[in-house]
Amino acid sequence: MHSLSSQATRPLSSSLSHYSTSYFRFISLSLPLFRTPKSHPKFFTISPKAPIFTVRNCTSISAKPSSELRAKRANSDSDSKLRALRDLFSKPGVGIDAYIIPSQDAHQSEFIAECYMRRAYISGFTGSAGTAVVTKDKAALWTDGRYFLQAEKQLSSSWILMRAGNLGVPTTIEWLNDVLPPGGRVGIDPFLFSSDAAEELKQGIAKKNHELVFLYDKNLVDEIWKESRPQPPNKPIRVHELKYAGTDVASKLLSLRSELVEAGSSAIVISMLDEVAWLLNLRGSDVPHSPVMYAYLIVEIDKAKLFVDTSKVGPEVMDHLENAGIELRPYDSILSEVESLAAQGAKVWLDASSVNAAIVNTYNSACEKYYQSLENKRKSKTEAYDDSNGWSEGPTGIYRLSPVSLAKALKNDAELEGMRSCHLRDAAALAYFWVWIEEQINKNVKLTEVEVAEKLLEFRSRQPGFLDTSFDTISGSGANGAIIHYKPEPDSCSVVDKRKLFLLDSGAQYVDGTTDITRTVHFGEPAARQKDCFTRVLQGHIALDQAVFPENTAGFVLDAFARSFLWKIGLDYRHGTGHGVGAALNVHEGPQSISFRFGNTTPLQSGMIVSNEPGYYEDHAFGIRIENLLVVKEVDTPNRFGGIGYLGFEKLTFVPIQAKLIDLSLLSGAEFDWLNDYHSQVWDKVSPLLDGSARQWLWDNTRPLVKQ
Amino acid sequence: MHSLSSQATRPLSSSLSHYSTSYFRFISLSLPLFRTPKSHPKFFTISPKAPIFTVRNCTSISAKPSSELRAKRANSDSDSKLRALRDLFSKPGVGIDAYIIPSQDAHQSEFIAECYMRRAYISGFTGSAGTAVVTKDKAALWTDGRYFLQAEKQLSSSWILMRAGNLGVPTTIEWLNDVLPPGGRVGIDPFLFSSDAAEELKQGIAKKNHELVFLYDKNLVDEIWKESRPQPPNKPIRVHELKYAGTDVASKLLSLRSELVEAGSSAIVISMLDEVAWLLNLRGSDVPHSPVMYAYLIVEIDKAKLFVDTSKVGPEVMDHLENAGIELRPYDSILSEVESLAAQGAKVWLDASSVNAAIVNTYNSACEKYYQSLENKRKSKTEAYDDSNGWSEGPTGIYRLSPVSLAKALKNDAELEGMRSCHLRDAAALAYFWVWIEEQINKNVKLTEVEVAEKLLEFRSRQPGFLDTSFDTISGSGANGAIIHYKPEPDSCSVVDKRKLFLLDSGAQYVDGTTDITRTVHFGEPAARQKDCFTRVLQGHIALDQAVFPENTAGFVLDAFARSFLWKIGLDYRHGTGHGVGAALNVHEGPQSISFRFGNTTPLQSGMIVSNEPGYYEDHAFGIRIENLLVVKEVDTPNRFGGIGYLGFEKLTFVPIQAKLIDLSLLSGAEFDWLNDYHSQVWDKVSPLLDGSARQWLWDNTRPLVKQ
Repeated sequence: MHSLSSQATRPLSSSLSHYSTSYFRFISLSLPLFRTPKSHPKFFTISPKAPIFTVRNCTSISAKPSSELRAKRANSDSDSKLRALRDLFSKPGVGIDAYIIPSQDAHQSEFIAECYMRRAYISGFTGSAGTAVVTKDKAALWTDGRYFLQAEKQLSSSWILMRAGNLGVPTTIEWLNDVLPPGGRVGIDPFLFSSDAAEELKQGIAKKNHELVFLYDKNLVDEIWKESRPQPPNKPIRVHELKYAGTDVASKLLSLRSELVEAGSSAIVISMLDEVAWLLNLRGSDVPHSPVMYAYLIVEIDKAKLFVDTSKVGPEVMDHLENAGIELRPYDSILSEVESLAAQGAKVWLDASSVNAAIVNTYNSACEKYYQSLENKRKSKTEAYDDSNGWSEGPTGIYRLSPVSLAKALKNDAELEGMRSCHLRDAAALAYFWVWIEEQINKNVKLTEVEVAEKLLEFRSRQPGFLDTSFDTISGSGANGAIIHYKPEPDSCSVVDKRKLFLLDSGAQYVDGTTDITRTVHFGEPAARQKDCFTRVLQGHIALDQAVFPENTAGFVLDAFARSFLWKIGLDYRHGTGHGVGAALNVHEGPQSISFRFGNTTPLQSGMIVSNEPGYYEDHAFGIRIENLLVVKEVDTPNRFGGIGYLGFEKLTFVPIQAKLIDLSLLSGAEFDWLNDYHSQVWDKVSPLLDGSARQWLWDNTRPLVKQ
Repeated sequence: MHSLSSQATRPLSSSLSHYSTSYFRFISLSLPLFRTPKSHPKFFTISPKAPIFTVRNCTSISAKPSSELRAKRANSDSDSKLRALRDLFSKPGVGIDAYIIPSQDAHQSEFIAECYMRRAYISGFTGSAGTAVVTKDKAALWTDGRYFLQAEKQLSSSWILMRAGNLGVPTTIEWLNDVLPPGGRVGIDPFLFSSDAAEELKQGIAKKNHELVFLYDKNLVDEIWKESRPQPPNKPIRVHELKYAGTDVASKLLSLRSELVEAGSSAIVISMLDEVAWLLNLRGSDVPHSPVMYAYLIVEIDKAKLFVDTSKVGPEVMDHLENAGIELRPYDSILSEVESLAAQGAKVWLDASSVNAAIVNTYNSACEKYYQSLENKRKSKTEAYDDSNGWSEGPTGIYRLSPVSLAKALKNDAELEGMRSCHLRDAAALAYFWVWIEEQINKNVKLTEVEVAEKLLEFRSRQPGFLDTSFDTISGSGANGAIIHYKPEPDSCSVVDKRKLFLLDSGAQYVDGTTDITRTVHFGEPAARQKDCFTRVLQGHIALDQAVFPENTAGFVLDAFARSFLWKIGLDYRHGTGHGVGAALNVHEGPQSISFRFGNTTPLQSGMIVSNEPGYYEDHAFGIRIENLLVVKEVDTPNRFGGIGYLGFEKLTFVPIQAKLIDLSLLSGAEFDWLNDYHSQVWDKVSPLLDGSARQWLWDNTRPLVKQ
């Protein structure tokens, strides 16, 4: 149905937005003041131990070569931007001593539109994670170990590079407290900080009596970006058909409203883009990899309002919204609506970990106004006023995690059917791809990691319902496979080497579902060391795949199953084992996860989707990861001790695991049987979608192995 | 060296103190206001989720039959005690409306001396866990599901039985807040509550404006107990020889003092009896099962004082203490010493989870006095006084967990050598025992569970260095094996049935170490169901035994290994998998544990001892548990990913696992090899200690199995 078109090449050519699928693994790598998507702050704030802002050292990536000329040009360009920005500091209505420019958009999105990439614009540093802080005489950029080399190349000499996580490197707050004279005014765009993050910042700088200044009216970077700033995306919104969504909007709103009533609230502001899309059965194309549109949604008990650029709303979507009783409002009228909710006395449910500080603060100020005016009325007694009701019935913020996160994670039958179906088409695309790449490599055709990723996209785009990649493909040959967040760039990437391991982590958005798969292969003869490591990663993968566990088990309980075979020889991997995946939505979602970090106590529940992706990475040598997506499902165990249900996993991903990388002598009988059984399922499910050499390839790669 | 003597029979005849080895498994079963030994509150208070006071429903035990006559006698006896107690409420210096009588002694001990069993005396209920609360017109006793039946029989009609954990049953605090008129005075003996527990109680009852009254001078139950109250124990203290202790007292004190300095403190009060015994290389016989003596220890930078009944201190111990620079003080002078520490300006390290409220409160009051007098001096200015120093140098409590807990858990080579050695002698005793019981059963001799436990004690007592059982033997035939805390009583226990599973969980104190072992056997033909369950418990036991894991791994991470095989068929067990064990000390110690509860984040460290005891319990049918003790040790892995060490376990326990209960077809090749390898080690290590039929029995039960 959908062909490649211009959309398909965008994600790959964009160097500005490249969260990888391994994003979750290094979620705790986040910089000070860098907020991770909504589902993950929860993960860390629950934990009594896990720091919210941890930084790990990790392998640096090789950055593009940059000529002297380019460096100089960047320098003067960068200086003029900084000058222009600082000129604004003293303008009326601004009056600040420093300005913080984070990486975020107003919705804590993982993938953001170019017009919101203000930190990249002002600093020249295009990595996905970073925070820029500009004072009257200094400019500093924080990023983590993934990006040190890239930042060194991209930043002009006007910028101080803060290598976050390195010994002695201050946090943003520490640095501000150090360089600003006491009593400074630190400006932020309050839309770009979650309420929680802004509060943390405010308290941190208050130690030196600095004041946090919310500049609601203008983003200072946008002011200097001017005409060259890309337009906000305005691709048309489409209806996500009921046959894929499974539950109609009316039913979803009904459930949400009953949760509102139960919590004693009368309205909720939903700001996570995937939550808006899921709740309204709508999809958009505003950002790469994620089929969402920029919008806020306010759901009240008797009405609901969608705040969106109305030019994106065609007649079909308009009908769809009207049928569900949803009114349209301009995207930028969100604050005035929040104000009027408070004025009407609405008790608003706000998830302070995802809703931005502009909204939360505006609501709180409006609440104060409400009570002030009530007090004035009471004092003046000019009007008849019933004292007893006014206070208890007045507006209050109800601060809780968004209830949509869990509802969205529990997939219904239609969503699961879509996920199953698109995974088979995805597997077919991969079969065609593997045949192609093996042929090319055997013909000694030189292929770069980027060319390979582009070809994979081409095969995927031929599949019905294909829309987009679900993240930037990680295509890593040899040592590049050991860089967990590797993103090959056309002018610096490696050629895929027949003599080395090749790690391919990729995924797609289809109209009916979302995929995310990693396979590691060798085109020649793997070394014994590589086979040993690969087999242990596979054993961990199998152990998690086969796990059965009681209801109410949190994902971290299962994490050790995936590591135990590596541990036996003193190996491990520095990322979690599984993340949630949306159904035709974000490739990374919460609230569940499977990780060695035990802060996320969300139980795995029937209908949740998780990835199963243990790995092993040998620095400067090779990387291994084997990733399938799984659905949590009830298992019909012969007993039900404790009167509760027992859960296990159903596989969604059906792509062969390369046999030549397996040391069969390490496998137990049960593991051996798992492998043959899996391959037999792959053949049964995927071969009908293939013909020619791809069908033959599938047969060659799924035929039963015989234990020596 | 040591023979049975009178000591050996005492633990079995005492019905008042019967914590079982399964104690830790149900640690969270604790009643409101019932404090568990010090190492375990940590476990729960760290957790963000695990409630401190959880109660699980568990199988009730079958209590002794009680005749009408006995019930009536108890009734009038009980009433007169309550009357006498209430008479004291209005006495000068008392003036209370309610009195709480917990199970504890002043040291949060697991096993306590009879003279401290005040709750049993006042209520007539002799179970190990319970809290009695007496008001002017009501008397209530809280206990948990283990003891509902027993409490029903033992309590007179004057008592309300509070079935803790049952729906709608209030906590002690809730009940007090309900029955007392607001502004009541609730009395406690502050020695019997940890400071943390007293604080929790104080805050809880403050909601109804009740006041918590500390009655320092007299325990009201002791007042009415009078002459019939047993004398405090005064068995002689002995020196724990350096060849067993491994580290001399001077070195231990040096380490402790450097920790004090590092924490900015100048003294520490140590109140856990095993910590005092470990630190001073002393052992006592004041309580059953645990070789400790009632004492407090205060260590300052330049001196140390032991508060103990000096009649227990003979010349050898006196020399030993003098050599280590330790002064003796009377046991009951602890409070005046704490007062004088504050007056001298000492900053005292106090573990509020274990040190009692009497000590902590006395110190705090004395600190207040200190500052009051300072303030007075400053105001009157009658004396020259340097303002700048007085405050920073004054006394302050430093509230942290005791550093002795971890130091004691990390066994040195001598301690490990003692543990290894006594485990072999213990295994020899068990071999003689198993031969004997099999012979008796085959001859159809009727043996009760208690007779069997007594015979086991006899075999153990013949081993050199035997001192005592390390807990009350759990000897459970058939359905009794499913009662995790089962304690057979002579007049109510079952006959060991040839046709049923028999679970035997027991342990001993030797001069050089402490044992704790569970084996489950069948004397006839086990059913397929029993073999299936037993084999899965064994597979879990093997998986944990064989685990290798990186440094800094907490025990809860490994817990699922022990359950996964049961989970696959929908089974589980409702207790933790491992607890710490002292070296010739308490059979239960912290700070580490292996449990599904993830509140205890203490990493497993080289030298720690843990039990490995998965189980399965089928109510009213049978119980299975397989328990070995393990030492955490470094493993020489071929890799050391992350530059850290990898840890695994060394077995201490060498007793055969009954082969007829194993369904060999369920075992993997590796599991099968584990079993044969273990049995071969058992033979090699234990056969030299055996002769005659026991040697033959060991051979029969350790010879290699052949896979079908």
